[in-house]
Formats: sequence, structure tokens, C-alpha cells
Amino acid sequence: MTTELTPAALRQRIRSGEHTTNTSGLCNGFVQCNMVILPKDWATDFLKFCQANPKPCPLLGMSEAGSWEIPELAANLDVRSDLPSYKIFEDGQVVNEVTDIADYWRDDLVTFMLGCSFSFEEALIADGLEVRNIAEDVNVPMYRTNIPCRTAGRFSGTTVVSMRPFQAADAIRSVQICTRFPSVHGAPIHLGDPELIGIEDINKPDFGDAVSIHEGELPVFWACGVTPQVALEHAKPPFCITHSPGCMLVTDIRNSKLAIM
Amino acid sequence: MTTELTPAALRQRIRSGEHTTNTSGLCNGFVQCNMVILPKDWATDFLKFCQANPKPCPLLGMSEAGSWEIPELAANLDVRSDLPSYKIFEDGQVVNEVTDIADYWRDDLVTFMLGCSFSFEEALIADGLEVRNIAEDVNVPMYRTNIPCRTAGRFSGTTVVSMRPFQAADAIRSVQICTRFPSVHGAPIHLGDPELIGIEDINKPDFGDAVSIHEGELPVFWACGVTPQVALEHAKPPFCITHSPGCMLVTDIRNSKLAIM
Repeated sequence: MTTELTPAALRQRIRSGEHTTNTSGLCNGFVQCNMVILPKDWATDFLKFCQANPKPCPLLGMSEAGSWEIPELAANLDVRSDLPSYKIFEDGQVVNEVTDIADYWRDDLVTFMLGCSFSFEEALIADGLEVRNIAEDVNVPMYRTNIPCRTAGRFSGTTVVSMRPFQAADAIRSVQICTRFPSVHGAPIHLGDPELIGIEDINKPDFGDAVSIHEGELPVFWACGVTPQVALEHAKPPFCITHSPGCMLVTDIRNSKLAIM
Repeated sequence: MTTELTPAALRQRIRSGEHTTNTSGLCNGFVQCNMVILPKDWATDFLKFCQANPKPCPLLGMSEAGSWEIPELAANLDVRSDLPSYKIFEDGQVVNEVTDIADYWRDDLVTFMLGCSFSFEEALIADGLEVRNIAEDVNVPMYRTNIPCRTAGRFSGTTVVSMRPFQAADAIRSVQICTRFPSVHGAPIHLGDPELIGIEDINKPDFGDAVSIHEGELPVFWACGVTPQVALEHAKPPFCITHSPGCMLVTDIRNSKLAIM
């Protein structure tokens, strides 16, 4: 596997079962997406939740009910097989983790694709900033906060954030860079003292891995795509499918196309 | 004096001697400028210094040698009389403070007009942010830092910053707002720990007045128009004129016209 694969070629390898692990670092330059699949009778509430909480839940595309295609994101897409790994939820609990969801498919399922931090991390690195979780080759640290989401129908909860430490001047630069990308979480939502947003111990993330914070660095916090998963845990829809962590949809859209300027 | 005066009408009152105090809060919506006047044989070095240090020294306009007009900034301008108060420097020392510089005028003088924080403060307030120095009706606190300016000819020095405290989310918003206004100091250059930029006591500004910093607020620092004055102190040109603090040129340019987007 090289990073020179096109998104279409990578999706084909995934579909054929040749690639079953995470997609980070693959197809550099192309947008990757978090995925949520819900029955139609839950889909409107989820759509409203995304609409009400665009920073943690930036919706890039959604399917018609029963369709496995989202043509605006990827040609010849089959969401049932084109992600490396899927989690199957029943009543809010994980009941299985699979590499193909054909056996679970139903005609009432609606697929949502949400922007992911890989896109803005690429923009930060392209500007010369060191993204610590990438430098240390670990998952980004993520934390539950006390920042409420806007409730929409049966979906509610608090915001989960990801954290990357920067010197102040780079933190300011990260605000400028990420402001250009509102559809992949946009600008940070907090920086500095973690306790102000309800994080007790910055060295003990609720998800992902801790990273080093060097002398003089500020922790900078972005709204995170795990937020909708927490909202799903609370709402407990009878049936739901998500991607497995790090095993994203790789789209045909270039990250640069998401820049609003 | 009301805030409804046009810039041209205010300049006329200043020229006639009816208004001799500071211009803050007057002609809301219009750009005000810091001013530096230097002999022609020092002007090229100063122009290079501005070019090399655009955040503290954002050059909005300059005159031809000997001319008191800068048509792109203000109609019928006479820089010799249209600012409320001037400081006269000889060899880097203040030798007089006057309300008109006709007696000091020379055919070799070049006038520089630099952007000022009034413009971005207006944009912050328009967005609903509280600018503490305005809320507390004092001069903004300013500090010498250890951030070097780029040297240009005979001009060198370190950056002076102004400080406004904000909650983290507002600090992030201030970065976004001020990024739109690169010609009036642009985005902050530091936030958080003052010691990291050489400020020992945030409650003892080197210029201006201290302001309250509330629980949970971060000090946010902008490059400041006092920086060129400090560079002038060091360079000690034989002759120089500046505006007196707060006694700015009020231009015909709307602040909104400085927004790059």
C-alpha cells in the first residue's frame, strides 16, 4: 500500500477485502469522512442535530433512504463495503464489528458522511505546524467537555473535543487556517485552561491517546467527530452503523476544495 | 462635539483650533491613523522598516516630500494642522508639543500614516465582544516585549504590544475578526502567558493603563503602533514629528473598506 493510490483505487482494495485497517495517512490531499447510518425514522432527527451543531457534526453528504451511493462525495460508492471496518449498534450498544455491512443492509437506511480532522491537520502541516499526535504517531487525544450540544429531537449531549498543543503564535495561526475549513470542524472552540471546559486531567483523554505538551505550549481544542457518537449512545436508536475509529470513507473530494477562501 | 461629525468636518474643527484633544470615539466607522514625519534622508529607511514589520507598522499612506497632502486617505488634508496635537523630536528627544506644525514645516519632510487599533476595536465591539479598555474607559495597556523587529537601515528594536483580555472563545473570535484587517495590526501575535514574550508584570504596562483581567480570561496581545515610536527613540533622527498619543488623523476611509474579505 502506498500513499499514491487514488481514492477510487483505495476504495476498490477495501471493497475487495485487501485493506481492512485504518485510512489515516492514505490518499493524502483527499477528504475522509466519519460515517453514521440510521433508519429513516431516526434520520431527520440526526439531520437536525447536525444542522444545529455544525462544528462537531459538519455534514458533507447524505444518501437517499436505501441507497448506498453519495455521488457528490465519491464515484461508484458502495457504503456497504467501501470502508475498512464498521461497528453495528443495537439500542446504543455495539453488537458487532465487521468489514462489510451487506448482511445488515435495509431499504430504510440513510447514510450520513461528516467531515473529519484529517483535512485540517493536513492544512496545518502544509503550513509548517507540527501536529503532535502525528509527530508522536498516536491517535489524537479526545475529551468529553461540559459544552452542551444543541438538542435536536432525540439527539442531545455534550461536545467531545480533540486537542493539539501549540505555541501561542502557532495556536493563532491554527485559528486562521482552520477558519478556512468550516466543513471539517472549523476554528478551535477553546484554548488554554482545560478545566474551563470541564476537562479535569489533560493527560487522561477519554478517547485516543495522550500526547506531550511542551513548555510554553497551549492546548488547543477542536470540536470532534466523536460528538455525534456520544449523542447516539445517549439516544439509543434501535439500529445504527458507524465506521470503526480511523477507518473512514476516503472520498474523491480534494481537501483544498473545502476551503471557503 | 458629537460623533455624527464627518471626518472632513472634524478635521476642519481641528484645523481651526476648536478641537485640540484626543480623537478616540469620534467619527465612528472611519479609519484613524498614527503619524510619523521624517526628513527625506530618513524616510527610505523608515519605509523599509514598515515594509519589514507590517504588523506593528501597517502603512496606509505616505506623502511626497514636502507635501502636506495624502489624497488617498483624506480630501483637502493638511497634515500640518489637521491633527489635534503633535510631538516635535530632535535627536530622539521630545522638544515640544504643539497643535500646529506650520512653524516646523520643511520642504524635505515625508509624512507616514499607519493603521491603528481603533479600527479593529470597532470590529470586535460590532461583533459583541467587550473591549476591556473601552469598557473601563482607559487607554489600552501596552507592553515592551522581547519579540524583535526586523531591522531596516537605521531602524531597529523590539515589538510593543497592546493587550485586551478575553475568554478563550472570544479570543478565538478576535483572531478571526482581526485577520480580516491586516492593515490595522491584523491578528494577535500572542495570547496566554505574558512571560513568554518578556512581559514580567501584566498589571504594570509600559504605556497606557492597566485593565482588569477576569477569572478564566486570557490576555491577548496585538502588535502596537507604539513600536515605530520606540524604533525612532533608538534611531534618534535629528528631526521628527509624530502625533500626540490618542490625537490621530481621522481619515475619510471607512474601517470596513480595510477588511480583506
